[in-house]
Amino acid sequence: MRDKAKILLLNGPNLNLLGRREPEIYGYQTLNDIVTELMQQASDAGFTLEHLQSNAEFQLIDAIHATDAAFVVINPGGFTHTSVALRDALLGVDLPFIEIHLSNIHAREPFRHHSYLSDKAKGVIVGLGAQGYSFALTAAIRHLQQ
Amino acid sequence: MRDKAKILLLNGPNLNLLGRREPEIYGYQTLNDIVTELMQQASDAGFTLEHLQSNAEFQLIDAIHATDAAFVVINPGGFTHTSVALRDALLGVDLPFIEIHLSNIHAREPFRHHSYLSDKAKGVIVGLGAQGYSFALTAAIRHLQQ
Amino acid sequence: MRDKAKILLLNGPNLNLLGRREPEIYGYQTLNDIVTELMQQASDAGFTLEHLQSNAEFQLIDAIHATDAAFVVINPGGFTHTSVALRDALLGVDLPFIEIHLSNIHAREPFRHHSYLSDKAKGVIVGLGAQGYSFALTAAIRHLQQ
Amino acid sequence: MRDKAKILLLNGPNLNLLGRREPEIYGYQTLNDIVTELMQQASDAGFTLEHLQSNAEFQLIDAIHATDAAFVVINPGGFTHTSVALRDALLGVDLPFIEIHLSNIHAREPFRHHSYLSDKAKGVIVGLGAQGYSFALTAAIRHLQQ
Amino acid sequence: MRDKAKILLLNGPNLNLLGRREPEIYGYQTLNDIVTELMQQASDAGFTLEHLQSNAEFQLIDAIHATDAAFVVINPGGFTHTSVALRDALLGVDLPFIEIHLSNIHAREPFRHHSYLSDKAKGVIVGLGAQGYSFALTAAIRHLQQ
Amino acid sequence: MRDKAKILLLNGPNLNLLGRREPEIYGYQTLNDIVTELMQQASDAGFTLEHLQSNAEFQLIDAIHATDAAFVVINPGGFTHTSVALRDALLGVDLPFIEIHLSNIHAREPFRHHSYLSDKAKGVIVGLGAQGYSFALTAAIRHLQQ
Amino acid sequence: MRDKAKILLLNGPNLNLLGRREPEIYGYQTLNDIVTELMQQASDAGFTLEHLQSNAEFQLIDAIHATDAAFVVINPGGFTHTSVALRDALLGVDLPFIEIHLSNIHAREPFRHHSYLSDKAKGVIVGLGAQGYSFALTAAIRHLQQ
Amino acid sequence: MRDKAKILLLNGPNLNLLGRREPEIYGYQTLNDIVTELMQQASDAGFTLEHLQSNAEFQLIDAIHATDAAFVVINPGGFTHTSVALRDALLGVDLPFIEIHLSNIHAREPFRHHSYLSDKAKGVIVGLGAQGYSFALTAAIRHLQQ
Amino acid sequence: MRDKAKILLLNGPNLNLLGRREPEIYGYQTLNDIVTELMQQASDAGFTLEHLQSNAEFQLIDAIHATDAAFVVINPGGFTHTSVALRDALLGVDLPFIEIHLSNIHAREPFRHHSYLSDKAKGVIVGLGAQGYSFALTAAIRHLQQ
Amino acid sequence: MRDKAKILLLNGPNLNLLGRREPEIYGYQTLNDIVTELMQQASDAGFTLEHLQSNAEFQLIDAIHATDAAFVVINPGGFTHTSVALRDALLGVDLPFIEIHLSNIHAREPFRHHSYLSDKAKGVIVGLGAQGYSFALTAAIRHLQQ
Amino acid sequence: MRDKAKILLLNGPNLNLLGRREPEIYGYQTLNDIVTELMQQASDAGFTLEHLQSNAEFQLIDAIHATDAAFVVINPGGFTHTSVALRDALLGVDLPFIEIHLSNIHAREPFRHHSYLSDKAKGVIVGLGAQGYSFALTAAIRHLQQ
Amino acid sequence: MRDKAKILLLNGPNLNLLGRREPEIYGYQTLNDIVTELMQQASDAGFTLEHLQSNAEFQLIDAIHATDAAFVVINPGGFTHTSVALRDALLGVDLPFIEIHLSNIHAREPFRHHSYLSDKAKGVIVGLGAQGYSFALTAAIRHLQQ
Repeated sequence: MRDKAKILLLNGPNLNLLGRREPEIYGYQTLNDIVTELMQQASDAGFTLEHLQSNAEFQLIDAIHATDAAFVVINPGGFTHTSVALRDALLGVDLPFIEIHLSNIHAREPFRHHSYLSDKAKGVIVGLGAQGYSFALTAAIRHLQQ
Repeated sequence: MRDKAKILLLNGPNLNLLGRREPEIYGYQTLNDIVTELMQQASDAGFTLEHLQSNAEFQLIDAIHATDAAFVVINPGGFTHTSVALRDALLGVDLPFIEIHLSNIHAREPFRHHSYLSDKAKGVIVGLGAQGYSFALTAAIRHLQQ
Repeated sequence: MRDKAKILLLNGPNLNLLGRREPEIYGYQTLNDIVTELMQQASDAGFTLEHLQSNAEFQLIDAIHATDAAFVVINPGGFTHTSVALRDALLGVDLPFIEIHLSNIHAREPFRHHSYLSDKAKGVIVGLGAQGYSFALTAAIRHLQQ
Repeated sequence: MRDKAKILLLNGPNLNLLGRREPEIYGYQTLNDIVTELMQQASDAGFTLEHLQSNAEFQLIDAIHATDAAFVVINPGGFTHTSVALRDALLGVDLPFIEIHLSNIHAREPFRHHSYLSDKAKGVIVGLGAQGYSFALTAAIRHLQQ
Repeated sequence: MRDKAKILLLNGPNLNLLGRREPEIYGYQTLNDIVTELMQQASDAGFTLEHLQSNAEFQLIDAIHATDAAFVVINPGGFTHTSVALRDALLGVDLPFIEIHLSNIHAREPFRHHSYLSDKAKGVIVGLGAQGYSFALTAAIRHLQQ
Repeated sequence: MRDKAKILLLNGPNLNLLGRREPEIYGYQTLNDIVTELMQQASDAGFTLEHLQSNAEFQLIDAIHATDAAFVVINPGGFTHTSVALRDALLGVDLPFIEIHLSNIHAREPFRHHSYLSDKAKGVIVGLGAQGYSFALTAAIRHLQQ
Repeated sequence: MRDKAKILLLNGPNLNLLGRREPEIYGYQTLNDIVTELMQQASDAGFTLEHLQSNAEFQLIDAIHATDAAFVVINPGGFTHTSVALRDALLGVDLPFIEIHLSNIHAREPFRHHSYLSDKAKGVIVGLGAQGYSFALTAAIRHLQQ
Repeated sequence: MRDKAKILLLNGPNLNLLGRREPEIYGYQTLNDIVTELMQQASDAGFTLEHLQSNAEFQLIDAIHATDAAFVVINPGGFTHTSVALRDALLGVDLPFIEIHLSNIHAREPFRHHSYLSDKAKGVIVGLGAQGYSFALTAAIRHLQQ
Repeated sequence: MRDKAKILLLNGPNLNLLGRREPEIYGYQTLNDIVTELMQQASDAGFTLEHLQSNAEFQLIDAIHATDAAFVVINPGGFTHTSVALRDALLGVDLPFIEIHLSNIHAREPFRHHSYLSDKAKGVIVGLGAQGYSFALTAAIRHLQQ
Repeated sequence: MRDKAKILLLNGPNLNLLGRREPEIYGYQTLNDIVTELMQQASDAGFTLEHLQSNAEFQLIDAIHATDAAFVVINPGGFTHTSVALRDALLGVDLPFIEIHLSNIHAREPFRHHSYLSDKAKGVIVGLGAQGYSFALTAAIRHLQQ
Repeated sequence: MRDKAKILLLNGPNLNLLGRREPEIYGYQTLNDIVTELMQQASDAGFTLEHLQSNAEFQLIDAIHATDAAFVVINPGGFTHTSVALRDALLGVDLPFIEIHLSNIHAREPFRHHSYLSDKAKGVIVGLGAQGYSFALTAAIRHLQQ
Repeated sequence: MRDKAKILLLNGPNLNLLGRREPEIYGYQTLNDIVTELMQQASDAGFTLEHLQSNAEFQLIDAIHATDAAFVVINPGGFTHTSVALRDALLGVDLPFIEIHLSNIHAREPFRHHSYLSDKAKGVIVGLGAQGYSFALTAAIRHLQQ
């Protein structure tokens, strides 16, 4: 049974570097800072936010299989462009999701213009930094409240 | 001189049909409804929102040339995929902008997967319906407040 | 409300040149000659034919939005290969249409082999000159009579 | 010597299934029904209509070689997309022809978007069902009467 | 030394969802049900079946490195289309294998039409559901008995 | 009316050479040997197996049109990659089918990697030699028994 | 009747921004400055120069239809890469023309490397700034004097 | 057993039109004229020439299967670009062959630039008209004499 | 040290044929005629023009290495589309250059649409015949005078 | 003035290695052997054969410019696939030519499947070894005798 | 803080098989043998070599995140062609690296010709076997010594 | 006869500019400096190093034909991407070779990513500057010593 008040936040490979990795592209906030704020935002709306960052594809897949959350917010990092298995995991458990990217992937290398998730997402937000997570969470909450 | 408290909202061709056109894809709100809410949101934050919807490419270009707004939020509709002139207008006056699409263009025809604007946008939001405009406006306001 | 006895005939850019423009390709009849004959054909069948030729994409889009006709016969001219906005207009108001071309576009430059309208048309007629309009009108009338 | 009052109607593979094969796409009339009506239409105009349906490419080619008709109306069925030999047969005997398709091939699988005949046809009519044959016959007759 | 009476069965990511994941595509049997039947089939023929399902690419690779089985039956799931490392593992230990897919991958998204394994497989079976595993096992057994 | 206890086996061009043609690729059994075994297998299960091998596309199409079998097992040989007409025949009479290839077409020339039949097949078996026919027949029988 | 002493100068979208728009690419002269100099150059040679800058495709097309000039010098701006209608207008009235671009389009985004006009132009001049217009005018005058 | 003194000459679809079909491309000699000369040339060298022209792919395939000739000279006509089955027939019986074309296929439509036979041929001769057959026959004879 | 009053004019392969080679495309003036006029034009402006025509790529490269001119005007002929070495020579000595072509390469074979030099040129002039050289020289002189 | 009894034979880079270079592909005869035989063949027919082998593109071009022969037989070696300048030389002096290749280029690397000369050749002969030169010479002689 | 005397050596999937896996391609030395030699080489130069071989992408990423080495020598194995996450890890921690491959990847399957790392590497060495590691280590040491 | 103690070093076009040409990419050492060091390195190992730098393709080819060295180290410069003749020369005399590039060609223009030599090289070294030559020489020496 899905818990309609729980949202799963997934961060893919290298996002643990946030604040340290190419800050001119990704900003100076750490992932911890961002997640703390999102936890507060979820809690203020009466929702629980489950979070996992992993550099391992299988851990993200396992989390998607195991969760009882009713919505996923996912920044798949480099897996965006290469992981059919992640796509299959989200489709397999039939969970609605929003895909976000901190940087504007359309302004970067051509191989970043294709995502294995976007056509199945409820929505996609790119280039708005940490704010993008907050927007995605807001949209997820509204989706679950309807 | 740019007015740092003014944002230009542009809606491209066929968006006047909102609420009437393929509502299962675009939702039941009219463009008027959406703009009224965004006007309120801007005003609450001490900003002015200038708005133009047009089915004519040149009117959107002229509005970009004429405005003294400091940021653009644009849903270019069908021009997204075909208008180099619109891209050149935004680059020509050197205005930061966010691109939004009501529907998830990644889930539609292949020709909708390429945008002549995205690589130059601050951010792109797709698939979140009218809420996408509100997120873009929030991001625009934050951008101008920094 | 759609008027089941009205058909909208649209002619795109440069079709005002008919009889003057590359006659070895497009024939010696003027657009006026053709429209007059079609008006008669429609009238003989108890139908009204509304007509617009325009070199401006937005005027064609506006006409599609404004009409209460129940069927469209369209020769999109050069917009055939470049206008997503025109496609969106026809889909947005959910009007059935037939696409016609005076010349055989398959025998011309490769960029003329793709149309942004054809996959959504009821039918497509190419290469049969002014006769093509008459066939399209006949088919439109039969469609509305069923 | 060409007989200026004779038209050859060719139907390619699987068109013998008409009325039985995927009727939601191709309609409920049998090929016999259609040909009978076309025979009448030709005869009313003082023309003879020769007809062959075959699932064998060589029989269509042989018919093109053997005929003394002055025009061909052809629905090449699946050979449209694969037969250079059929194209060569029509070019080899230098017969003008119109290509027709019952369904709108532009709305179907991508491999149906290319025809080995279209660039050499006088005209092409797609998507208008059995009516398309009648239009093609009308155009053929007019062509021969000029 | 290879054990000529042992076969390794590998199932890739998300196959643990079988019976739960998109059952209209993959069927209602669980992976457990299928493996139990295959164990019986192998045993009846005097063979051992070693089995691993994993969502982790490296675990599948490690299993291929470690096994003393003489044949592999593999359903690589989403790794089919993205894993050169899995291909290299199979080539590296020089194990003959059969690739199977429960659904007909040719009828799904274009990116599922290419496999990094197929050109090196003894055979490929797609679209026949759980039966496909049984056929692959039969073929593996016959291969080893020759 | 379909006969639910009859299966049509079709073999395309050059398969009459089996045992003689490139035996290192296709094996040493003749087509006769294979068909005799399959006849026995069908008969053991209470089914009739109708068989046609032909080098002529139209004879395969005609057989598909004429049969009252309820399932087709087809090795289309070289027509796999070139015959839209064969695809249309199978779709036209709405017969479920399994496609088989003796050799592993994925390990051969690139033009053999695309099939005009696979996306419409119930399943596809490649590379398993004559055994592939037997598996396809088993699956066909099970399909009809359900 | 064509006036052999009149040349039409057309400037497409965003060229009204000259001197203001990306001056490091396009230079610091305004369009007015350039046109004034060209008027003088034409007049010195006994020619009239008609000029139109427009952001609207239809106004450029209308000007091409309406003019009695005998040669066109055109900087199509962003329409270079997207407007079949503009191409058709120039071909439709059968006017010789030279295409010019201020910047070197070969050194910019890949989509700027293709022009819908170049293959029909008498000549093309790119990258030489305002001087390019002057060269084109000189060539146009010489063309008309021959 | 192959007869080392027999050569099979095959001519594909539409070559029966020779002398009548597009003579400015293919020349004014009939196929009969050409074959008579080749028969003489073969006979002078102590060889037999077996000949078949057919518009039916299966008849060419059957002839390849049936012949006891030791070499094939083939002008596959339109089948050059579309027939995998013909390729398979030649490979299946393991007969060396030379491919010839009367016209220069490299100077014609792009789809004529690819042949399904050339990479398996001993040699290919194009553009030299009827002389090409004679050269191919000479080469065939020399091949068999070695 | 660069001589700011010297310009190097390079003409690539086959340009020695000018006046003799395909005059309907390249004009009737010989290269000698053109160079004499350009020498005069340079001299009138107080500049020296060094000239080399060569059919040998290495001689053009050597000339670029050896020159003390401050600007290059180059018509690379057939090397335009094939010579990375020529591009590297110009980049290696860091000389600004203008590329010119007598004919309109955009109106010729597709392989002539790409140049290995254009993206590094100051400007490109095509289709204006010998006049193009004169324009390039004028632009070179102005460039050096600034 | 062309000498109607003279033929120019050109051999491109690496053909001086004949007999030494990859003999399993190119045969054991030296170029000298082949040319000696061709000289005899030409002389027997009352023709002169001028010969040049060069590893330098410009020497081949210069020879084409300088010759008064009326026909060229050319084996362009590696320049086949890379030299636009050679193509331009042949077109520039308007000399008919036959292209020959010792090996079957269609059976080798994909980049050898395209020739910059073939579409302009009278004919092309590949894969027939030294015999190919002799056939080309025969055809050249016949061409000049007509 | 980076340790300027430490180098991280990474070996991707299947490299643990060295000496066992396809020795005709990869050589007979084990990875242990190679690493032992490299350790000695590093130590001789006063450097520390940290080593990790893993079949798991995340372990390589984690090692890159965790290391305080100042340079990376990496043989990414099969991840070369598929892992954006590995690329992002190296870019994220801003570590200079050299990419090496034992075999010549340009001589193998086409999918091995593209690397997600090469354009960001200091250098790339392929095809030189274990020696390649030693060269890379030498270059790394020199880089750090400068 | 090959001299097993001699190595041929070849440098292609523009490498004579080393130290002068784009030093930020290619370094400040002259080619002379590099060759002197390599001569020493060869001599220390008891080997002779023959060297040629040329901007002329034919001189490199001639050197390859003429040498009695047993190994080639080649930096083909711009010919890397355009010269089939150079490839054929190396294959023709069957000399093993290593290809080197001073800069990282994978980080430069896309046309530099393909080499006509790499798939036939023993190894390829890119991006390591003059050091790359030294590594290649070491590998060549080891190759010859085995």
